[in-house]
Amino acid sequence: MAEYIRAAVLVEPGKLEIQEFPKPSLEEGALLVKMTMSGICGTDKHGYKGEAVQYAGTPREIRGPYPAVPGHENVGIIVEARHPRDGKITDFYGKELKEGDRIIISPDILCGKCYWCRHTYGYTWCDNIRSYGHLDASVAPHLFGGWSDLMYVFPGSHIYKITEDVSDQIAVLAEPMAVSYSLDIAKGHSSMPNEGFSSGDTVVVFGVGPLGLCHVIKSRLIGAGHIVAIDKSEYRLNFVKEFGATHTLNVDQTSIEERKQFIFDLTDGRGADVVIECAGVPVVMVEAIDMLRQGGTFVEVGHFVDTGEIQLNPHRHLCAKNIRLIGQMNLAYTGMIPSVNLMMANREKYDFDKIVTHKFHFTDALEGLFQSMKPESMKVVIHP
Amino acid sequence: MAEYIRAAVLVEPGKLEIQEFPKPSLEEGALLVKMTMSGICGTDKHGYKGEAVQYAGTPREIRGPYPAVPGHENVGIIVEARHPRDGKITDFYGKELKEGDRIIISPDILCGKCYWCRHTYGYTWCDNIRSYGHLDASVAPHLFGGWSDLMYVFPGSHIYKITEDVSDQIAVLAEPMAVSYSLDIAKGHSSMPNEGFSSGDTVVVFGVGPLGLCHVIKSRLIGAGHIVAIDKSEYRLNFVKEFGATHTLNVDQTSIEERKQFIFDLTDGRGADVVIECAGVPVVMVEAIDMLRQGGTFVEVGHFVDTGEIQLNPHRHLCAKNIRLIGQMNLAYTGMIPSVNLMMANREKYDFDKIVTHKFHFTDALEGLFQSMKPESMKVVIHP
Amino acid sequence: MAEYIRAAVLVEPGKLEIQEFPKPSLEEGALLVKMTMSGICGTDKHGYKGEAVQYAGTPREIRGPYPAVPGHENVGIIVEARHPRDGKITDFYGKELKEGDRIIISPDILCGKCYWCRHTYGYTWCDNIRSYGHLDASVAPHLFGGWSDLMYVFPGSHIYKITEDVSDQIAVLAEPMAVSYSLDIAKGHSSMPNEGFSSGDTVVVFGVGPLGLCHVIKSRLIGAGHIVAIDKSEYRLNFVKEFGATHTLNVDQTSIEERKQFIFDLTDGRGADVVIECAGVPVVMVEAIDMLRQGGTFVEVGHFVDTGEIQLNPHRHLCAKNIRLIGQMNLAYTGMIPSVNLMMANREKYDFDKIVTHKFHFTDALEGLFQSMKPESMKVVIHP
Amino acid sequence: MAEYIRAAVLVEPGKLEIQEFPKPSLEEGALLVKMTMSGICGTDKHGYKGEAVQYAGTPREIRGPYPAVPGHENVGIIVEARHPRDGKITDFYGKELKEGDRIIISPDILCGKCYWCRHTYGYTWCDNIRSYGHLDASVAPHLFGGWSDLMYVFPGSHIYKITEDVSDQIAVLAEPMAVSYSLDIAKGHSSMPNEGFSSGDTVVVFGVGPLGLCHVIKSRLIGAGHIVAIDKSEYRLNFVKEFGATHTLNVDQTSIEERKQFIFDLTDGRGADVVIECAGVPVVMVEAIDMLRQGGTFVEVGHFVDTGEIQLNPHRHLCAKNIRLIGQMNLAYTGMIPSVNLMMANREKYDFDKIVTHKFHFTDALEGLFQSMKPESMKVVIHP
Repeated sequence: MAEYIRAAVLVEPGKLEIQEFPKPSLEEGALLVKMTMSGICGTDKHGYKGEAVQYAGTPREIRGPYPAVPGHENVGIIVEARHPRDGKITDFYGKELKEGDRIIISPDILCGKCYWCRHTYGYTWCDNIRSYGHLDASVAPHLFGGWSDLMYVFPGSHIYKITEDVSDQIAVLAEPMAVSYSLDIAKGHSSMPNEGFSSGDTVVVFGVGPLGLCHVIKSRLIGAGHIVAIDKSEYRLNFVKEFGATHTLNVDQTSIEERKQFIFDLTDGRGADVVIECAGVPVVMVEAIDMLRQGGTFVEVGHFVDTGEIQLNPHRHLCAKNIRLIGQMNLAYTGMIPSVNLMMANREKYDFDKIVTHKFHFTDALEGLFQSMKPESMKVVIHP
Repeated sequence: MAEYIRAAVLVEPGKLEIQEFPKPSLEEGALLVKMTMSGICGTDKHGYKGEAVQYAGTPREIRGPYPAVPGHENVGIIVEARHPRDGKITDFYGKELKEGDRIIISPDILCGKCYWCRHTYGYTWCDNIRSYGHLDASVAPHLFGGWSDLMYVFPGSHIYKITEDVSDQIAVLAEPMAVSYSLDIAKGHSSMPNEGFSSGDTVVVFGVGPLGLCHVIKSRLIGAGHIVAIDKSEYRLNFVKEFGATHTLNVDQTSIEERKQFIFDLTDGRGADVVIECAGVPVVMVEAIDMLRQGGTFVEVGHFVDTGEIQLNPHRHLCAKNIRLIGQMNLAYTGMIPSVNLMMANREKYDFDKIVTHKFHFTDALEGLFQSMKPESMKVVIHP
Repeated sequence: MAEYIRAAVLVEPGKLEIQEFPKPSLEEGALLVKMTMSGICGTDKHGYKGEAVQYAGTPREIRGPYPAVPGHENVGIIVEARHPRDGKITDFYGKELKEGDRIIISPDILCGKCYWCRHTYGYTWCDNIRSYGHLDASVAPHLFGGWSDLMYVFPGSHIYKITEDVSDQIAVLAEPMAVSYSLDIAKGHSSMPNEGFSSGDTVVVFGVGPLGLCHVIKSRLIGAGHIVAIDKSEYRLNFVKEFGATHTLNVDQTSIEERKQFIFDLTDGRGADVVIECAGVPVVMVEAIDMLRQGGTFVEVGHFVDTGEIQLNPHRHLCAKNIRLIGQMNLAYTGMIPSVNLMMANREKYDFDKIVTHKFHFTDALEGLFQSMKPESMKVVIHP
Repeated sequence: MAEYIRAAVLVEPGKLEIQEFPKPSLEEGALLVKMTMSGICGTDKHGYKGEAVQYAGTPREIRGPYPAVPGHENVGIIVEARHPRDGKITDFYGKELKEGDRIIISPDILCGKCYWCRHTYGYTWCDNIRSYGHLDASVAPHLFGGWSDLMYVFPGSHIYKITEDVSDQIAVLAEPMAVSYSLDIAKGHSSMPNEGFSSGDTVVVFGVGPLGLCHVIKSRLIGAGHIVAIDKSEYRLNFVKEFGATHTLNVDQTSIEERKQFIFDLTDGRGADVVIECAGVPVVMVEAIDMLRQGGTFVEVGHFVDTGEIQLNPHRHLCAKNIRLIGQMNLAYTGMIPSVNLMMANREKYDFDKIVTHKFHFTDALEGLFQSMKPESMKVVIHP
């Protein structure tokens, strides 16, 4: 008799329900994973709201059909592995995988053969990208997301075996932390203090939900001086203070001019060295550039979906400002374990486990989704 | 009896006339230089038209009062030097200077003590910047620009002694070539082929007047593959073919869609690796970003004055595009002699001298200015 | 009746002979290639002399068993392709491959799954590396090198389809040119003129056989100023002058002190910005460091096999010199087509085809090998 | 009646005594500073032992004549300032200085006009370098070092005004922390995880006296994962554990082979990403390279004086290893305040003040010097 597996399914915008699917048989090279934790991400909220078109203006424009089993920040334990005849399934570091291993699964399955896979290695710019949490759940074996008991892992996925000492809470943060690779890029742009993100630099982060928090943490752990967090949630502003933010500004209690003045006062009139836009509000970009120093670095990582246009002045905002701007989408899959290593090495000083503020069983995923939209939450996860 | 020196003076927008000034006495550390060549630059045209506000949105916002002796791309021979009591006037490389030496004079006099002078060395971001060609000619010793017989060089100026084999034509190009340092930055962002400007990359240059030409040359000499020049002057498009452009597109004979298609066909459907905007037309920026590849580098160097705004979509143009953008204003004074060295080392292959297409005596400066605005010219210079 | 294919076989050190092998049947994903050109490389000479241990001190230490069909710089035309059932064989850029296509074949077949394949993408640091020209010819299908009529190309090889306008001579240089990626790294270390390899820099190349010549060309095409070539072959010194070297020094006609003095005179007493060691003579390294400027970059790319030790003084040669040193082995497989693009874009100015100075049929491979050891040759190739 | 100021004077190797000098009159632009703290550095020990020749093989080879007032890591309060007629004395950030301001004084006075000052800005590679603590005390105004009540600060010195919240202990660490700029360079060599020093990397530090400790701290604060400290002092190994080291190895309790094995086990058999040599023992370099991964970065910062030679194998240690090596001497004066900012921003997590383990009045400087040579000390300072 067939065994059935339950999963949360986003049937259409606004409609999330629990469905049953037959327990998958594994193709060669595939894994079956018992979920231990699966994060709720901003794109899940967008998907629920029907804002599901990502990667606009690129060949990958259309992603995320309905129905889908959501969940792309995934941690679990291998319960079944079907090794290929000519070898073993290995993780991203070449380590053999077997039943009982706890793993992180990268959200994206890449073809490995297109121009981007070959030439922009590390980035998820594949022309044939398929992403867990966004695949068509009407097609067998269905279980392509983490909001479920079991998840099906395709051959060729990027998998990272983790050791026992890594908590699920740290493991589930590997993915959003790996999104902050633009800060590594900015750091890579700077050996002397002119360019990029240098030791001791003043960093401003707009929007400190989970993604903004990850950027605060990353900034702290790779060498920021002052870190100023800007948000309207006092809960979140207090939260990030424990993870490296040295100053906070509540947008409901300050004017644009006051915030700009604060940054200029803090930097002896120069402006911030790095500003990171995680708020996803187009107009913030102009405020953000205005508080940037000459030659400062602006990171635009908050617009994973299209939320409209802004007006920019090429002379004032770009040329005269000598701006360096990094637009960024998705994660660096090479940055998952470095992110874990970074958190583990700083674990005694920062209690990363508490970043997961709310846990919901996948049968309560909708409640979890609503919780994640509230300003009084940080990382909300699905947890069997 | 006082000796009088004649110079072209931009008295007010639209009014350029010849005036006489007493021959200057030198303060300690100053030089008097007999001009051999002084370029006409785009900012001179802006100044003539009254578009003289540069560095908008920065503490250096107001520059370029009238009246001024124009000319900031300057080459000349030292006719008088007043060495300080405690030493000798030296050039940027520490070489002693004396009468008879031929020199290039950097346009900007920096204070050397402000935050920017101390921390963004090489860039002309000084809070107290003073620029030859833009200083008040009503104040003695008046002769602060190159469109004259003699030029007064302040103590603390950046001066570069050149050897006899360097032609005036190459010397006068040092300054605009040094503006192209954003390509050096982009090159510095790339050791593997993901980021910045790598060997063999496809480069597009919008607007190939003298500044665009310099970017074509620089791209060629530091490792581009294809270089596509876009302009409406057939004269200029033909010109740049001799200096490294492999393809040209005339905007009057092609549509936006055709140009974009051309670039995508040339790059197997990926888009250009680097696009450089030298046209100074805001709307070009959107076209330029659209023809950029994922993660490509966009250089905005064409908006030295404010010409209006554009609409950008943070998701489509920045995030989803994974763009890297470098806004750039002014030159790197550390790049003057490297530019000369680069041209000298490639002189057998490229006839850089012919880039100076028209020469005018400073008493005919107005005619020169008009010539420089015509599409049938490349570098126009003032030449006694 | 079986068809037989002839190939040159290095049976043991000092013994190169012609053998016959049955025409291979293709496994899924493999190609059979009709050779049009195969270069003779320094490692082929080392192999002939029995100096075949490469990658010392690494897990890849032992490479190059005898017997082998030499030839790893390979260009040819696909005569047979056995596409996998579930797709097509594609080249490194994702382009479909079919009979009649002319291709370059990267020398190394990488596992794609080990730590190095995953984390140092672009570099050939694979733990399971297999290299054409160095594989055991006693094992079927035998034809693992380019000194033959036909070559067998394994599934998973890096293949680069080239267009008709690319000559075999340029195509065969893609591999040695791709070895010069350390110059791209050095370029990537420098946005301002302190570090790495900047525009207009003075470069010294020790040893200008084919590999040294490629470094001269690369230096020229990515932005060197002066390039000084040092060798004992007047033939080779004259040769490199046509490809960008601005000065040459014959070691038989100058003393160490004279050469050092020459470099210091050329650089106003500072020393060279970049010195590249392609001579493969250990003691050269000390001379090379001594002529380097403070903070200059030293590239050690000449010791692909072990030729002994040198004495270095950590204070004088490293600390006090503020040296930046790049040791380098093998090529960047991501650099093959960029190298072709770079040569094609500069083809009107440099006659790259003439770099192939001698061609031999593979049945005369021994004669070719001897020719390649003579100072009066540049690139010697096997050409059916 | 003349006022006399006492100072410790290193009269000759092995002879440190207290002398009296007349209180200096200030030249224009000079300051007189009341010392609050002055560090004892490794070079002071070398000077005491007569190993005073630094910068070997460079134009700056001879430095450090006797007699000298030692002390170049200096913090103090301005007691007298003689402003120039045409302006005010400003600090490195352009801030006006006045009596009562607490300042850090960079050890080196640079000419600002030589090639190095102009082209390798930020580095102390000046051809005319003069260094506090190493200047001839027999020449008036004598007080050129910090082991005294008062110190004379020349015009043109690099001075950094600090705020009240910065402790003397943090201020005095600015200089040795600024020596660790090679880690910033390494970080600047890496945007993706192939090159340089990336987030989460495994770092090994040989020798964890004060300089090694600073490298441990810097590695921790700019993004290391594992940090392994190697020393023979158990005291120091325990010390660095509180500042970021995750593992320690005592050289007296382990063999070379065991240490290498430990590193390889820790890194799944790959080797360390970055190894920093702060021990100043030549032979350590070979051990250090052997425990480095393919393409890892080796920082040689421990040989500020000549301690002999080592044997290296260009093939095995450099080429086959694909090594990147950074030799480094002296500090980046642009890195002083960034170092302070970095410590201040992490002050809640790390008790930097306790790094100063011993304080001595300058009249007990000899005792301090001896204490600093003992393995049971970290930073020893002179403190009035």
